[in-house]
Amino acid sequence: MTTNRQVRLAARPMGLPKRTDWSFTEEPVGQPAEGQVLVKVSHISLDPAMRGWMNEGKSYIAPVEIGAVMRAGGVGEVVASRHPGFAVGDAVGGNFGVQQYAISDAKGLRKVDTKFAPLTTYLGVLGMPGMTAYFGLLDIGKPQPGETVVVSGAAGAVGAVVCQIAKIKGCRVVGIAGGTDKCKYVREALGADAVIDYKSEDVKAGLKKHCPDGIHVYFDNVGGEILDACLARIALHARIVICGAISQYNNTTPVKGPANYLSLLVNRASMTGMVVFDNAARYGEAAKEMAGWMAAGKLAHKEDVVTGGIDAFPETLLMLFKGENFGKLVLAF
Amino acid sequence: MTTNRQVRLAARPMGLPKRTDWSFTEEPVGQPAEGQVLVKVSHISLDPAMRGWMNEGKSYIAPVEIGAVMRAGGVGEVVASRHPGFAVGDAVGGNFGVQQYAISDAKGLRKVDTKFAPLTTYLGVLGMPGMTAYFGLLDIGKPQPGETVVVSGAAGAVGAVVCQIAKIKGCRVVGIAGGTDKCKYVREALGADAVIDYKSEDVKAGLKKHCPDGIHVYFDNVGGEILDACLARIALHARIVICGAISQYNNTTPVKGPANYLSLLVNRASMTGMVVFDNAARYGEAAKEMAGWMAAGKLAHKEDVVTGGIDAFPETLLMLFKGENFGKLVLAF
Repeated sequence: MTTNRQVRLAARPMGLPKRTDWSFTEEPVGQPAEGQVLVKVSHISLDPAMRGWMNEGKSYIAPVEIGAVMRAGGVGEVVASRHPGFAVGDAVGGNFGVQQYAISDAKGLRKVDTKFAPLTTYLGVLGMPGMTAYFGLLDIGKPQPGETVVVSGAAGAVGAVVCQIAKIKGCRVVGIAGGTDKCKYVREALGADAVIDYKSEDVKAGLKKHCPDGIHVYFDNVGGEILDACLARIALHARIVICGAISQYNNTTPVKGPANYLSLLVNRASMTGMVVFDNAARYGEAAKEMAGWMAAGKLAHKEDVVTGGIDAFPETLLMLFKGENFGKLVLAF
Repeated sequence: MTTNRQVRLAARPMGLPKRTDWSFTEEPVGQPAEGQVLVKVSHISLDPAMRGWMNEGKSYIAPVEIGAVMRAGGVGEVVASRHPGFAVGDAVGGNFGVQQYAISDAKGLRKVDTKFAPLTTYLGVLGMPGMTAYFGLLDIGKPQPGETVVVSGAAGAVGAVVCQIAKIKGCRVVGIAGGTDKCKYVREALGADAVIDYKSEDVKAGLKKHCPDGIHVYFDNVGGEILDACLARIALHARIVICGAISQYNNTTPVKGPANYLSLLVNRASMTGMVVFDNAARYGEAAKEMAGWMAAGKLAHKEDVVTGGIDAFPETLLMLFKGENFGKLVLAF
């Protein structure tokens, strides 16, 4: 009998999640009932949003309950199917959780094309981060040719796609990332016109230098001081996309609100929140357009695949919050 | 020879403006050149925005220079004219400054109809505050029938108009105001469905009670803790109109940013700043519709006319920041 190893939430973390906030369990692999499939998970996606899912309280999605398998997007292979739409051997993506095997009723399950791109691509540029970038930038940021788009977390899974779509749309792109290697990547591989290294440079000064006409679109993945610095530099009628706030997720003190928010008034600007799931009905359309850009060589992507297996989940997740991953962070089982 | 008494900005205030931040000057009344008119100012408008105009630095309008006559909207009568569009005796409104006489080149000067409404009405409901309410609520808030609209500073010049237009548009209105009299006014004269007295009640608890389905539109005149309390209570796809932040204008410490801004993400909501002047080309259209509502008895208004004359300007302005005015604050010369 095969066992299914799982990572469950053991306690609601204060600050950075500790290993004791997780429990490891094993149970026999289940068999799919009528209408279900059994998936052997090969990789899971590690996303900053996971930190929010661990907290109690109302949010855009229910919190992971204490004792439940941690929520995670993943990819894998169908190993048993009692669903007419899926056959053994199909490569699939879905919300499988942090476990080696998942039973799915096919809701949210999608077949992926491994001839077009490697399986893990569907956790990154063709997965949730890519969709987030696509809909956040295009629908909320509404970038116009010639405008200046600033992206924080520019080397991250979402930010990297934002940078490149903004370039495709004819914008000037200024990326903000941490460290020499990431900054080089943002400029050279992603094509940003300028990059600011928040770890070694004064972000305010960098924005002043690289955005002489102000910021027309700011795609915010980080919150905190960088959001404030961008607010101080927005142009008339700027659009700020609030996609995430990784700098604030592990706070043990209250979130730092953007003190410069009155710049929205001065500049008749807007700050709008987004949740990618709202666009689920349009993922296909977006994936098709993005696949076209990939095929045309306009959408580079980078993965940071950690090979430690499921037991490495707790430490791998922390890489996100320490800025240690370089590219879309994925854990291979 | 008639003299023109003026109030000039003597120093950039720290915190609440002190009397020593102003200087009083007298000069002979000038005569209009070709294309100009001379206006005897009868009343000036006192607005929270004035505090911002006294600060140095980039904003939506140039700061008042040290030594310059303080900027103010006013109403009065044409007493000499060399402009074909204006005759002696015309009642007019415009940006006259804090002085008894103003020379105008007719830019921004408008004739007002004192048969329809008293002159001071054109500083309130039919003036800048009314326009702010109209365009801010309708164009940015986009209230839909049945939605819950929350308004802070609900008894103020802008807030009172917002409350009433929201009712006209079929919304549930919850006003936030300070003190028993103002709250009674908001409920009884302005027709709000509920009111929260921020001076004696817990605003969070009040919002929870009166907005069981969340806040669809929040019209923010105050910023600070109240903005944060509203953010925590917004509904899906809520619109927050950033019109002002009177609680923060006299800060000597940094502005308090809204710590709950990530509620914008959770609720796919937006926060948008506005400046009324952008709508100048449409003031006529708005004034016509608002005059119709006034004639139909749907748009009550209240004025707080201080009769101390121009020398009372410094203390009268402070009434706004202490919440001491009750109705649109006007100074009669």
